[in-house]
Amino acid sequence: MAGTRWLDSDEQRTWRAFLAATELLADALDRQLQSDAGMTHAAYAVLVILSEASDRSMRMSELARATNSSQSRLSHVVARHEERGLVRRERCPTDRRGQVAVLTDAGYDVLTATAPGHVETVRRLVFDGLDPTQIEQLGTISQALLAVLDPEGKLSAVFPVS
Amino acid sequence: MAGTRWLDSDEQRTWRAFLAATELLADALDRQLQSDAGMTHAAYAVLVILSEASDRSMRMSELARATNSSQSRLSHVVARHEERGLVRRERCPTDRRGQVAVLTDAGYDVLTATAPGHVETVRRLVFDGLDPTQIEQLGTISQALLAVLDPEGKLSAVFPVS
Repeated sequence: MAGTRWLDSDEQRTWRAFLAATELLADALDRQLQSDAGMTHAAYAVLVILSEASDRSMRMSELARATNSSQSRLSHVVARHEERGLVRRERCPTDRRGQVAVLTDAGYDVLTATAPGHVETVRRLVFDGLDPTQIEQLGTISQALLAVLDPEGKLSAVFPVS
Repeated sequence: MAGTRWLDSDEQRTWRAFLAATELLADALDRQLQSDAGMTHAAYAVLVILSEASDRSMRMSELARATNSSQSRLSHVVARHEERGLVRRERCPTDRRGQVAVLTDAGYDVLTATAPGHVETVRRLVFDGLDPTQIEQLGTISQALLAVLDPEGKLSAVFPVS
């Protein structure tokens, strides 16, 4: 294509390092949580979000947005949590067609038992390897990327990132 | 857990913004490539890596490492590419039990037709939203993360990132 703004070699290196780092990190977090709690990182995020919501409950549609998940992917994750008794689904009191996901006491217990090991993994894989200036830069850069990827702040309305 | 090094509120914000940005970005790249070329970003990466290999071919085991993929996930991706005639598998000449993936001419054509639109998407979603200093910082931070996530440089041996 004439006029394609190809990446130069520095940009190429940056882009590939970023891709590799984020992919390896996502896999490492999945492995840690599968091994310690029998769930993916995405499934763990569902428990975290619910634990922070008022009444530890959230409409499924909102929960999908908060976890950056499609409705079908979320349904699958919540169904697995339900089988384990960590989450239950109820009819939405204000919308007859809607459903609400509620974190159970058992779900809260699993979350509090899992969180320390997970935070330690995040520290070890991300924060410990960066100096304070780099951590600040990473925050600023992530916000700049979100401004492009989520310009209307749909995600940050339900998942506080700033 | 006593002594858990919990994230403070700044670190929490940074971590959540980083997670949200990388997840939204991964989804956006998948959507663009599904729509333009009928393949995921991971499947596209397989074509890129093969196009850069000598003879446009690579052992499946090496290709799995280069794309940070499990053997089974890679087999699935390559099988789909094979159905479309973009890649073919051959017996490895130096290892009877091994297999080599080869990018076909049709695969190369699909890659060159797809690359401009993909690069434009990467520019728009990542590079255009960051200033030159931030881009440099992102490269340095990604390398620092890779030093922790891939300490032996297994990935970078086959997928040049530095």
